[in-house]
Amino acid sequence: MTPTATLGHFRAEAADNKKKKPMQNMTPQNLRTPGPTPIPHDIVDAMSSPMINHRGPEFDTLIKKTTEQLKQVFMTKNDLMVLTSSGTGSLEASVVNTLSPGDRVLAATAGAFGDRFVDLAEAFGADVKRMDFEWGGPIDPDAIRKALNDDPGIKAVLVTHNETSTGVTHPLEEIAKIAKGEFDKLLLVDAVSSLGCIPLPVDAWDCDMVGTASQKGFMIPPGLAFISISERAWEAQQTAKMPRFYFDLAEAKKALEIGQTPYTPNLSAFFGLSLALDKLLEEGMENVFGRHASVAQYTRDSVEELGLELLVADQAYASDTVTAVKMPKNVDGKAFMGKMRTEQNIVLAGGQGKMSADIFRIGHLGYVVKEDISEVITALKKVLPEVGFKP
Amino acid sequence: MTPTATLGHFRAEAADNKKKKPMQNMTPQNLRTPGPTPIPHDIVDAMSSPMINHRGPEFDTLIKKTTEQLKQVFMTKNDLMVLTSSGTGSLEASVVNTLSPGDRVLAATAGAFGDRFVDLAEAFGADVKRMDFEWGGPIDPDAIRKALNDDPGIKAVLVTHNETSTGVTHPLEEIAKIAKGEFDKLLLVDAVSSLGCIPLPVDAWDCDMVGTASQKGFMIPPGLAFISISERAWEAQQTAKMPRFYFDLAEAKKALEIGQTPYTPNLSAFFGLSLALDKLLEEGMENVFGRHASVAQYTRDSVEELGLELLVADQAYASDTVTAVKMPKNVDGKAFMGKMRTEQNIVLAGGQGKMSADIFRIGHLGYVVKEDISEVITALKKVLPEVGFKP
Repeated sequence: MTPTATLGHFRAEAADNKKKKPMQNMTPQNLRTPGPTPIPHDIVDAMSSPMINHRGPEFDTLIKKTTEQLKQVFMTKNDLMVLTSSGTGSLEASVVNTLSPGDRVLAATAGAFGDRFVDLAEAFGADVKRMDFEWGGPIDPDAIRKALNDDPGIKAVLVTHNETSTGVTHPLEEIAKIAKGEFDKLLLVDAVSSLGCIPLPVDAWDCDMVGTASQKGFMIPPGLAFISISERAWEAQQTAKMPRFYFDLAEAKKALEIGQTPYTPNLSAFFGLSLALDKLLEEGMENVFGRHASVAQYTRDSVEELGLELLVADQAYASDTVTAVKMPKNVDGKAFMGKMRTEQNIVLAGGQGKMSADIFRIGHLGYVVKEDISEVITALKKVLPEVGFKP
Repeated sequence: MTPTATLGHFRAEAADNKKKKPMQNMTPQNLRTPGPTPIPHDIVDAMSSPMINHRGPEFDTLIKKTTEQLKQVFMTKNDLMVLTSSGTGSLEASVVNTLSPGDRVLAATAGAFGDRFVDLAEAFGADVKRMDFEWGGPIDPDAIRKALNDDPGIKAVLVTHNETSTGVTHPLEEIAKIAKGEFDKLLLVDAVSSLGCIPLPVDAWDCDMVGTASQKGFMIPPGLAFISISERAWEAQQTAKMPRFYFDLAEAKKALEIGQTPYTPNLSAFFGLSLALDKLLEEGMENVFGRHASVAQYTRDSVEELGLELLVADQAYASDTVTAVKMPKNVDGKAFMGKMRTEQNIVLAGGQGKMSADIFRIGHLGYVVKEDISEVITALKKVLPEVGFKP
């Protein structure tokens, strides 16, 4: 068989396989992790569009359209760049493009993702003043004020808007008023599990760098990250000495001007993103936020009705994208989550970091409606008694 | 309209849109850029599989299976990590995981991607001895030997296996014999447009770090990068002081041990990769290499028969993944490429860097057979006279 004949066979087989079920032959799960989220069918189809030249006119149109729409979702007139990476890539970009080794930064953390932001800044040589708050509670803005008062050398404040590991939405608006309005510091925001789901008006709150990712509010798979950059952040970029290449935002900006990215972009996700943004903006961001708020409230109410306890005591800080529930005493968490997955086809998330065994989490962000959560509640009613839970 | 009702509408619309054509409503082009490449239909379908929990058992199975298969394609027993990034991310990973600022490295370049490797190493503070070779020709191994003899302080050699911008395959085997066999240096290889298409037996040639990307030989879209890491490279990692977080391979290794990635992976591309690797290994890598070699030879022969001139004078170094053709005198390159695209539905690549206007390039890698190139040749015969070409 010649090589070409081999591929000929290979192509015939491809056409044949097309009639079969997808590779993994999976029943779609009710995927209730806080990202990745389920993907709407028409977005899946859009993602199946044929590859294009990422240095050609089709991509020029695509990146300029999606960038303008993303700015609407971010509620910003700032520059905005799309990176081919996970959300963490956008956080690395925010740090390495604004800071120099030795720069003093204040990083507030109350969970695994707050901790990650600290680790990232330290990895690149920032001098991090770390402030720890209780997991399951919010960051205290007054403590931020005090820390900034006590240490005028601080250049930047790093904060997580929505702490995915605990299901807490930190009071970013108040923190921004202090960090920006009172102290005029750079403000770098991890908005990975909030942007597009929970209001975060980037310009109104004057956030300098805001990073998020495609698999959360945007209803597309992981593989793209989005970051907005204020003028103040661009100024900082001029003198920032942390080394950067893949995440150099000045290179991204230069490429965007000619409708490109510096390095080959995740085209499939871009195809999906374009339709996802059409859909979000058609629904209207106020409606999208309202939907998240009402589904989240329904989740919290239903969980409490089952006799389960929420991790977040103060509902004012409970996240509208993910709800953390205390693992009931006497319940084997692994057995419980396994039964939910294998018998009920519902995928919940466990705890993270030091809370691995203490909680389970229900994601309700992106492509989600109340009915998706009703299914979870029905399944919990069935499974919890089987694993020894007594309300 | 309540938010849920809005989404209800939104879901009905999604089901309706599903019957329509994909978002971009595009006729598939004969995409002859040297990556991204066309994607086989069954791989597109596999990529449409529903999202899964990237911290759950399905992903554990998926990453372990694909990693083992990738090692077969890399012909290595070394560790291998999958990164959610473009190919350049794998090159950044190779540099920042093995080097410290101030380390002396030798970087040989004869094109835009060789230049990029230099820029990357310099961005992270390496002390780069840069060796320039003529664009369109190969790196001279004897010159590498001389440079290593002259400068014993050199710690690592950085080299591009296949220079995509000129269509030259550099003599990596000979360079490796010198850099490793004679001088025992670290060898970091950019194999973005060669691996899986042109033989690169990583262990036989003793390459320490070899990086490549999904949209080239692997027949899937851009958005994943692959990198192999030798024991020697891991030793270097222990003392390497360049800062790293997103591209920290020790974190990737730790996560892989529990069937995960440190940050949310590009799941769609992973679904496609799994099937793509099944197909490549079923075809057999020797057949895959043979197919690339024969399609490339056909490309070069046909182009010369048209009276066009190849950039690469010495066919021994002509790449089997991309062919660079000198833009004929008196031909307006933009008009020519535009006509090929809009009238013939064939997308060629222009030149890069200082050769932007001097050449055009025909990609023939990944999902490619002779018939794809025949179409290009037929179109060239029609279009070239229309833009003033006289053989």
